[in-house]
Amino acid sequence: MLTSIIHLQIQPEDSDNAVPSDALGEQQSSSGRPLVGLATRLDNRVLDLIAPLNHAIFELHGGVQKLFREFLEQNNFHPINTPKLLGAPSEGGANVFEVKYFEKKGYLAQSPQIYKQMLIASHFERVYEIGDVFRAENSNTSRHLTEYTSLDLEMEFQFDYFEVLYFIRDLMLYILHGLQTRYKEQTEYARKRYPAEPFQIPAKPEDVPILDFADGVKLLAEAGIQLDEKDDINSTQEKQLGEIVKKKYGTDFYILKEYPLDVRAFYSMPSTTPGKSRSYDFMLRGQEVLSGAQRIHNHALLRSEMKRRGLDPDGPGLKEVRYSPYKNFSRFRFTNVPGVCRIFSIRLSAACRGRFWLRADRLQLARAPKCATGKLLPTRSRQVDALKRLKAVEDGVSK
Amino acid sequence: MLTSIIHLQIQPEDSDNAVPSDALGEQQSSSGRPLVGLATRLDNRVLDLIAPLNHAIFELHGGVQKLFREFLEQNNFHPINTPKLLGAPSEGGANVFEVKYFEKKGYLAQSPQIYKQMLIASHFERVYEIGDVFRAENSNTSRHLTEYTSLDLEMEFQFDYFEVLYFIRDLMLYILHGLQTRYKEQTEYARKRYPAEPFQIPAKPEDVPILDFADGVKLLAEAGIQLDEKDDINSTQEKQLGEIVKKKYGTDFYILKEYPLDVRAFYSMPSTTPGKSRSYDFMLRGQEVLSGAQRIHNHALLRSEMKRRGLDPDGPGLKEVRYSPYKNFSRFRFTNVPGVCRIFSIRLSAACRGRFWLRADRLQLARAPKCATGKLLPTRSRQVDALKRLKAVEDGVSK
Repeated sequence: MLTSIIHLQIQPEDSDNAVPSDALGEQQSSSGRPLVGLATRLDNRVLDLIAPLNHAIFELHGGVQKLFREFLEQNNFHPINTPKLLGAPSEGGANVFEVKYFEKKGYLAQSPQIYKQMLIASHFERVYEIGDVFRAENSNTSRHLTEYTSLDLEMEFQFDYFEVLYFIRDLMLYILHGLQTRYKEQTEYARKRYPAEPFQIPAKPEDVPILDFADGVKLLAEAGIQLDEKDDINSTQEKQLGEIVKKKYGTDFYILKEYPLDVRAFYSMPSTTPGKSRSYDFMLRGQEVLSGAQRIHNHALLRSEMKRRGLDPDGPGLKEVRYSPYKNFSRFRFTNVPGVCRIFSIRLSAACRGRFWLRADRLQLARAPKCATGKLLPTRSRQVDALKRLKAVEDGVSK
Repeated sequence: MLTSIIHLQIQPEDSDNAVPSDALGEQQSSSGRPLVGLATRLDNRVLDLIAPLNHAIFELHGGVQKLFREFLEQNNFHPINTPKLLGAPSEGGANVFEVKYFEKKGYLAQSPQIYKQMLIASHFERVYEIGDVFRAENSNTSRHLTEYTSLDLEMEFQFDYFEVLYFIRDLMLYILHGLQTRYKEQTEYARKRYPAEPFQIPAKPEDVPILDFADGVKLLAEAGIQLDEKDDINSTQEKQLGEIVKKKYGTDFYILKEYPLDVRAFYSMPSTTPGKSRSYDFMLRGQEVLSGAQRIHNHALLRSEMKRRGLDPDGPGLKEVRYSPYKNFSRFRFTNVPGVCRIFSIRLSAACRGRFWLRADRLQLARAPKCATGKLLPTRSRQVDALKRLKAVEDGVSK
C-alpha cells in the first residue's frame, strides 16, 4: 500500500506553539524539516487548527462574543444586522473597498455607525451588532486585518454620557471576569504559549479607576514624562501611563476621559470644562481597546464647531455629517405638520446616544499577534485568504 | 417660529401597515397626500421604523437568531466568524460580487460552507455562524436580497445522517415554539398586518412527519397531481403537498427526505436505496425553508459520480470540489509519515458531517415580502441601499 511518501510540511504538534515572527517565516527553514513559519501554517490551516492552542484561542474568541451578548441581552439590548454593501463609503473615502455592484459601484461597510444611529432615532433605545467590517488598509502588520468582527452597541442615555461610560465599564468587567472564570483553562493554555502575566482586574466596577486626561498627563509628568495637555498621548506614553496606573491602583484596566477637544473628531460633544470633550478611552495593559464619545446632536453647534476647525460643513467629503439623520430632523423642528411631536422626540432621543465599538480580537490575548487570534483565515491586505491559499496548496500538490 | 411648512411624505402611522405591492408603489399617489409605497418608506426608513409593526418585525428577526444560538450553545456548538473577502468565489462563478482588493480581485462570500467544513476537519465537531452572505442575483423580486443574514451550522455525526436531520428538526421546533410563546405579542401584531392563520406545529419532535420523497409523490398522485418520481417537485406542487400534509397530519411543518439523486447536487451522498440521495428539505406552510444533505466524502466516489453525470472532475469551474479539503486528505491516506493516524482521523471526521443553512428572514412571516422582514435597509440589486438613499433624500430637501 505504501506507494509513495508525501512530504508533510506541518503537523498539529508544530502548531501548538506561538506563531513565530512574520518576518522570519519561511526563512528559518533548515536541516531537512522546515521550521514552521506563519505562512506555512496558514497554507495548512486545517492541520494548524487541530492544535489545542488554536482550539483554546477559538474558544476565547467565541467566548468574548458570548459574554458580550449575554450581558447586553440581560440589559435589554436588541440584536441587529445592518447592511454591509453600501452606496457610499461609511467613513469617508479612505480605506474603503469598492465592489462592482451590477452596473454601479458599491462599497463595503467600514462601520455600522450610521445604521446604529438610525435605529436609535427610530426609538429602538438599545441595539447591538456582532458583524464584519472591512478596512482597505494596506498595512501588513500583526495589528492590521482588512476584515474583522466588530462588537458594536448604541444606546440612549437620559442625562449624561456617564451613563454610557458606566454601562460599558460594567460590560467590560463582565467579559474580563467571564474569561478569567469560565474560560480559565483556555486562557491559561494560551498564556503558556504566549507568555504574559495574569490580568489584574478590580473585582468591583466602582474600583475601576476613571481618570481625567489631565490627571493622566500629571501622572506622566510626575514620572518625568512631559507632554502638552492639549496634545494626545502616543502609544509609548499610553504604555508608560498603564504601568504607572498599575503601580498606583493595582489594575491593568482603567478609563481615561475628557480628552482635549481638538484631538477628537469634530463631531465630539464639548465638555462643560472648556477645551475638553465628552469622550473616553478604555485601557487594557497600557493599550487603548475601546474608544467612545458623545456626539454633537445640535446641527448649529456641529456647523460652528466644524468652522472653528477650518472645515466647511457644506463642502464635499464630509459624508458622515452630510448623511447624519440629525440634519433632517433639525429641519422638522419648527414645523406644525401632524406628527411633529413624534419627530421632535426622535430628535431628542437621537441626541442622547452613547457609542461604542470593540474589536473581537483585541480583548483576548493582548500579546499575541492579530493573525493568531481566532480568525479562521486572517485576511490581511497581502493575501485575500482562504480559497486562494487552498488553491495554492493544491497546485503545489498536483505539480 | 412657524416660518415654513415642510411637506412630510410619511408618518410612523403610515408605516404601521403591511408594505404594499412593490409594483404599485408610488403609482398610487393621489388626492394631495401620497399613499405611502415601499420606495417612499425605504427613503424615509428612520420614520418608517418607528412604527410598532416594524419594531415587532425587528424583534422577531432578532428572536429567531436568539433562539437559534440558545439551542446550539446548549448543545455545545461553537460560534465562528469566517472570512467574507475571498480570493476565489465560494460557489462557482455565478452570482458573486467582485471586490477591488488593492491590486488584485477579491470576491464576497456567497456561503461559509467551505470554512465550516475546514473547521470540522480541524476537529471542532460542532460549529455555527450567524453572518452575512452576498449573492449578486439581479432579481428585484420580494424574495431576493443581494445580502442577507445566514444562520449556518455544521456538525459531525457518528453513524447516519439522520442524527443531523433529527437535530435540526429539534432546533426548528425550538425556534418555532419559542416564537409562539416568547414572542407571542410580536407574532400576533405582525399577523394582524400581514394576515395569516396561526402556525400549526406539533408539540413533540417525534410528531413532525418525516416523509420519503416517494411518499410525497404518492400523496400528490392520490390528489390527482401526477409527477415522475425522478423529477423534483416545483413550488406549486410543494404548496399543494403542504396542504395535503396539513390535512392529513395537522401540521404546517414537515420534512421531506431521500430526494432523487439526480435532482440534487453531484456531491450529494447516494442513499442505500438506488437512485435516491441522503438529503432532506424542511417545509413550512408548503415552502422549503431549509435544505440539507450528506456530502460524498470519498474522493473516488465523488469522481465517479461526477463522471456519471457528465462532469469532468479535472475540468475548470468546479471550484467547490477542487478546493475541497477532502481531496488532499485522501492523498495522505496511505502514507506512513508521522501523524498519519491523526490525518486519517481528520478524513473520517470530515466524512461524517451534516450541513444546514437557513435564512434569518425566512422563518418569521411566511407571507410578508423579504423587504419587510427585519432588514434595516434591504439590499436588492436595484438599490445599493442606505447611504445612497439618505443622500437622495438630502439632495431632495436641499433643492
